[in-house]
This record gives sequence, structure tokens and C-alpha cells, in this order.
Amino acid sequence: MQQALEGVKVLDFSQLLQGPFATQMMGDLGADVIKIERNGSGDIYRGMTFFNQWIAGDESPCFMAWNRNKRSLAIDIKSPQGKEIIYKLAKEADVLVENFRPGVMERLGYGYEDLKKINSRIIYCSASGWGDDGPYLTRPGQDLLVQSVSGAIMTSGKNSDGPVAIGTALCDQVNGLNSVYAILAALYYRERTGKGQQIKTNLLSSAIAFQMQDYFTIQNLGQTFERPESKIGHPGNGAPFGMYETSDGYLTIAMSPWPKLVEALGDQSLMRYNDPQVLFDDRDKIHGIVEAITVTKTTDEWLEIMLGLDLWVAKVNDQKDVEKDPQVIHNDTFIKVDHPKAGKVKVTNVPFTMSETPGHIKRSSPLIGEHGTEILMEIGYSQGDIENLVSENVISIEKIT
Amino acid sequence: MQQALEGVKVLDFSQLLQGPFATQMMGDLGADVIKIERNGSGDIYRGMTFFNQWIAGDESPCFMAWNRNKRSLAIDIKSPQGKEIIYKLAKEADVLVENFRPGVMERLGYGYEDLKKINSRIIYCSASGWGDDGPYLTRPGQDLLVQSVSGAIMTSGKNSDGPVAIGTALCDQVNGLNSVYAILAALYYRERTGKGQQIKTNLLSSAIAFQMQDYFTIQNLGQTFERPESKIGHPGNGAPFGMYETSDGYLTIAMSPWPKLVEALGDQSLMRYNDPQVLFDDRDKIHGIVEAITVTKTTDEWLEIMLGLDLWVAKVNDQKDVEKDPQVIHNDTFIKVDHPKAGKVKVTNVPFTMSETPGHIKRSSPLIGEHGTEILMEIGYSQGDIENLVSENVISIEKIT
Repeated sequence: MQQALEGVKVLDFSQLLQGPFATQMMGDLGADVIKIERNGSGDIYRGMTFFNQWIAGDESPCFMAWNRNKRSLAIDIKSPQGKEIIYKLAKEADVLVENFRPGVMERLGYGYEDLKKINSRIIYCSASGWGDDGPYLTRPGQDLLVQSVSGAIMTSGKNSDGPVAIGTALCDQVNGLNSVYAILAALYYRERTGKGQQIKTNLLSSAIAFQMQDYFTIQNLGQTFERPESKIGHPGNGAPFGMYETSDGYLTIAMSPWPKLVEALGDQSLMRYNDPQVLFDDRDKIHGIVEAITVTKTTDEWLEIMLGLDLWVAKVNDQKDVEKDPQVIHNDTFIKVDHPKAGKVKVTNVPFTMSETPGHIKRSSPLIGEHGTEILMEIGYSQGDIENLVSENVISIEKIT
Repeated sequence: MQQALEGVKVLDFSQLLQGPFATQMMGDLGADVIKIERNGSGDIYRGMTFFNQWIAGDESPCFMAWNRNKRSLAIDIKSPQGKEIIYKLAKEADVLVENFRPGVMERLGYGYEDLKKINSRIIYCSASGWGDDGPYLTRPGQDLLVQSVSGAIMTSGKNSDGPVAIGTALCDQVNGLNSVYAILAALYYRERTGKGQQIKTNLLSSAIAFQMQDYFTIQNLGQTFERPESKIGHPGNGAPFGMYETSDGYLTIAMSPWPKLVEALGDQSLMRYNDPQVLFDDRDKIHGIVEAITVTKTTDEWLEIMLGLDLWVAKVNDQKDVEKDPQVIHNDTFIKVDHPKAGKVKVTNVPFTMSETPGHIKRSSPLIGEHGTEILMEIGYSQGDIENLVSENVISIEKIT
């Protein structure tokens, strides 16, 4: 099987979420991602988890989710021998990704200007919280903090709720996606011109660009969004767009012509609201009137009636029920892969198909420094050299006990 | 100025949000995006807006937000002359993007197998709601509906809220980003091998993959997320992670060592909660206790105290205040560009920098068919031919009156 990014070497200094997500995406399409981890303890994210619970003793689901398809080298990047190794790897790398605070890589001797001298073709992507300079330069940049500053935290739920955190790591993940977008464009450009370059992404700009439609509206219509007090599904939309309780769960109604919806609901008196301005202005009240009807039947009963009228509707799944959804099963969304400690683990598949170069999950997340030996042998170190580097505590290789 | 995707021709049949966002991203890096619109009325999204309000008479901010850096050709793609034009454009295209329901392009004679015969190098990306086959094949696929089926709608706010829609078009936009990720990887692969290919993305798989960390946890730890009833910022996290009311707004506290936070709050009795299990189990109660202290000072006062202790904190901005944020100003996040009808409009800049091939917004969203003449002249039509095509209603060119 051929993969689109086969032969692309990625040197990955990133930790936590955004950088690892970006490099995992490249690994899913065949890139050789070498994860540079802290000697001994590894990526900080290995020490963070949900519910204060762990997999197979001490493995973090947070870490495991974003580090498949990578090989790990755990190394003291400040030691002279560590530097020699990093420079050798950088010389052969196509892409470097890092998300230290701005300036750290430069102080270590691994800045873009340093590495360009030994590898002019390198594509060097730095991802920061707020930007690589400016008033927030020294502030900690993290997903929830960026949701807050970017306004994203004021877009969900009700106005009376105040800030409502978005449940996914929105800013981290969108910046991971933007980093891949920029890196792959740079790779394409390099293929045609031979030129490498430096890319700088940041969570704040990504989070704001993700709200492009909101900001375009606010800045060019001069009106801000007021979140509905009902379950209308977007601050800018009128009824019926939203979620409605049924007798056994919730039904979601997206854009649907009001007269057709009235037909489905079986109460022609609702035609008195058939005006876009009324449907916007009285959306909370109308939501309540519609919901008084939807609670009388099950979600499946409404789906049958409404899909039959070509209305835009769907059921609401709890996260725990998603893997049982017939379309999710059909799409092979979840697959199993072996983990050295945890055995078979379930992972989310690559979310698209490519006819010539499919995505593929060939390995789960690595142990700390698991691939140290093979990575160093590939750049000319002998078994004896590697044993010395371990005994001198330059690198570490986690073993299963 | 050189751009990374200069010389890449994108034939864009997409409408509404996800496809247009994907092609706009390619345009921002220099691709020549030709937007194929319905003759006369254009992209459906031109007819949808927020608050039932419009810009410059009848322009939609929703449409304008996702269609900069494109040229528009408004054409009857079912007419024989229209087909001839589409085939000529497809012959020269590097990339094609479409988001009709599965099967529509094939019935029109524009399926991948049809176009591959005239252009074997084409990269053909179809984006659907649920996947290109399976039980939901004929169902309408739309962002809020996919938030519902994918479980994303159950991740924000409080458990007692039931479903809470995420305020951005999460599924559309993430699938737009995934489409770009796949297309650029395919372009890179084609550059090395000469081979085009077919890509199929869908909202549902993208939405689930975006919740990868949640699903990894649910499926491998066997525990589902319970959303907090307080403003704790993530269902899987304990206190203090979350948003806290102050005397004049809100302060967000991300991962912060409890003893340091206690020092900042100035109440040593809070050290009795210094245990990760307690901070998780009693998070709602602890949130309330901390908030009783944070409401006594302004957000700026807390920022000074807490940033001084290197705690991970930030203020919460309302969307309307984001453009005044000093870091946002420093980052040049919003810039102005000319629109043929609306004059200067403010747009969100490309969210990253590239040292050799910067992103650039050279034009705002097009009028319907605005570039019909120049696009057809480029493939050999004369001014007379074009006038005939207009009079026969094969193409239309919107003029400002």
C-alpha cells in the first residue's frame, strides 16, 4: 500500500495536544514521525488524564489518543551527545514541529536559523498560544484560555449562562489542523521549488478564524449575537432550528420550511408564525410550542414522519451510544490496534478515504523512548553506542516489566 | 510575492459552508478557485443570513465569510453548452471539490470516473454529510444534525442541560479542514508520482475524529463523561479548571497547581482540597467556593496577581470585544478588503504566517458570475461567444446597478 506522505520525515518536539494532533495526522498518511520526548518522563501529557483514572496502570488516554503512528525517542536534548543526535536527525528531516513557548528552541540551538544552516529544505512549524511576539508573549497559552480570549467561549448555550466551554479542545485541535494545512502546502511548494520555510501558527488566530462567520457578521452588520434562552441551535438563527425533547430523547431540526414542519407536527394553527422575522424574534417562545408537541412521540416516530416529508432532522446520540449508530458502524469509524502495554485498544479511524493512498493506523502510541534503538541505528549508531547513551542517561528506553 | 498553491486550479462545485471553507483556504494560499454557481441565483448560502439582516441590500454575511479569494462562474451545468464549458475547465483543473448529495455529480456526467478520462491527474474531493453510502445515504446532512448524531452536542454546558449546540459550525468547518488536509497530501503525492485520485470526506466521521480524545477515553476506560453542573471547563477535569465570575466579568483558570492557586486566593484553609481525587469528585462545590473569592476583585486585578505567580489564567472576552484585545490587534487578525457592492469589509486574516509563501486575501467574495467573462476567455471563448451564452441563459453575470 502506498501512502501520500510516505518518505516524509517529521521531527516532532511537540507536547500536550495541538502539536501531537498535527503530527499524528501526518503519520496517519504515512509520514515517519519521530517524537522527541523528555528523557525518562516523556511528553507532559502522559501525566494528565480524565477522571483521575489510567489505562494499563499508568498510560493516559489523553496521550494515547494523539500519538499513534509515531516512534518515540526519549532524549536529553540539552546534553552534548543529545545535541549531536538532534542535529543528525534534523539534517534528514523534511518537517519539524514544536510547541514550546516562543524562544525556547532558539536558546537550545534548535531555532529555524540554526537548522536551516544544516538543512535548507526543512519546513519548520512553531505553534504558540498567542503568537510569536506581542503583549501576551510570556503568558501561558492553553486551549480553555484561548477559548476565553477568542470569544469562542461565549457562543454555546444560553446568554444567561455566561461563558460556556466547548467540550472538545477546540482551539488546540483547530490549530493542529491549520498547522497541517500550512505544512502540507509548504511541502507541495518545496517539491516544486526546492525551498523550505518557517511557519508560525498560534491558537488565538486559529480560534478567531474558526469563528470567521461570526466575526464577519459582527463587524460588517454591526450586530452581536445573543444566545437563545431555549434550545434554538445557533445564536443567529430563528425557530425551528434547534433541539427538541421527545418522549424518549431528543430530536434535532435543522433548516426546514415552516409549512412542511407544521404539516408534520399536525397543528395548522402554527402557520400564524410563518414569517422569518417572527420565527427569529419569537424563537424561544416558538421553540417551547413546538417542543410541547415533540414530547408526545418517540424520536424514531418523529424521524419517520419528518424524513418522509424530506425535513432536515436527526436524532441526538449520547457519546456512549455513538459506536452503536448504524451509520457509524457502516463507516468503520472505530477500529482496534495493538498497544504494547494495554493490548488491543479502540481508536478513531482516519476520517476520510483516499482511493490511491489510504490513511492507515499501523501502530498505537509508543512507550517512552520505545524506538530509541532503531532510530539511532538508522543514523549510524551501533548497539554499543546506544548502550553507552543509555548508561550515560542521554536517552532512555521504557521496557515493559 | 510567491504563494504556496500558486498555479493550482480548483474547480469548486460546493455550496453552503464546508466545501466553500475548504476552497477558500486553498485560495488564501494562492490557488485559483473557480466557483461554479447556479445560473442566476448562485450558491444557496447567498440566500441565508443571521438575524434576518443583509449587507449592502442583499448580500449574506454567511456567504461572504467563506468565499473570498474566488472567482465566480454562474452557469447552467445541465445544458449542453454548460457541459462543454465544465469539461474544458475540468481538463485543466488540479483539484475538484463538490458537496452535492452522493450520486448527483455522477448523474450530471461529472463523476470522478467521467472526469478521470479527460484528466487523469485530477484530485477529486467529494464531501458528504454521513458518508458516500450506508443507512443514512438519503438523509439530509447538515452541521447541527451531525453535531447531534456524533455526540458532539452532548459535550458542552451542564449534564442537566441535555444537548447544547456548539456555537460554531463545528462539523462543517472541521470537515472543511480535513478536506484540505487530504487534498494537499494528494497534491504532494501527485507531484511525486503523477497520479491523481478520489477523496471522500464526510461530516460525521470528521466530527467523531475531532472527539478522538473523548472516544478513546470512553471506549478504553469504559467510563462516560458527566458534564459538570458548575463552570468547570471540561467534563473530564476537576477543579479549578474552569471559568469564574469576577466583580466585572469572568476569569478562566486552566491547569494550575492547587497550592499556588490557594496562595493567590489568600485562604490557606482551601488546602484541605489538595488531592486530585477530591478536586475531581467535589469539583462543583469547590468551584463555588473559589468563585465566592474571585467575585471580590476585577478580572484585571486577578490577572495581575495570578500571572505573577505563573498560574495559567486569562480573561473572558465577549465576541464584540475581541477586536480590541491588544494581542488580537498585534496579530493583525482583522483586515479590510474591497467588496464590489459593500465597499470595504472587515475579514479575518489567514491565521498563520509562512516565511516564503505568505497567505494573502486579494479579493472579497464575488458577485454571482462576476468573473464569467474572464474565465471563459481564458479557455478560448470570444466576447461574442460569451454574449451568446448570456442571451441563451447558459451563464449569467451579475452587474451592480
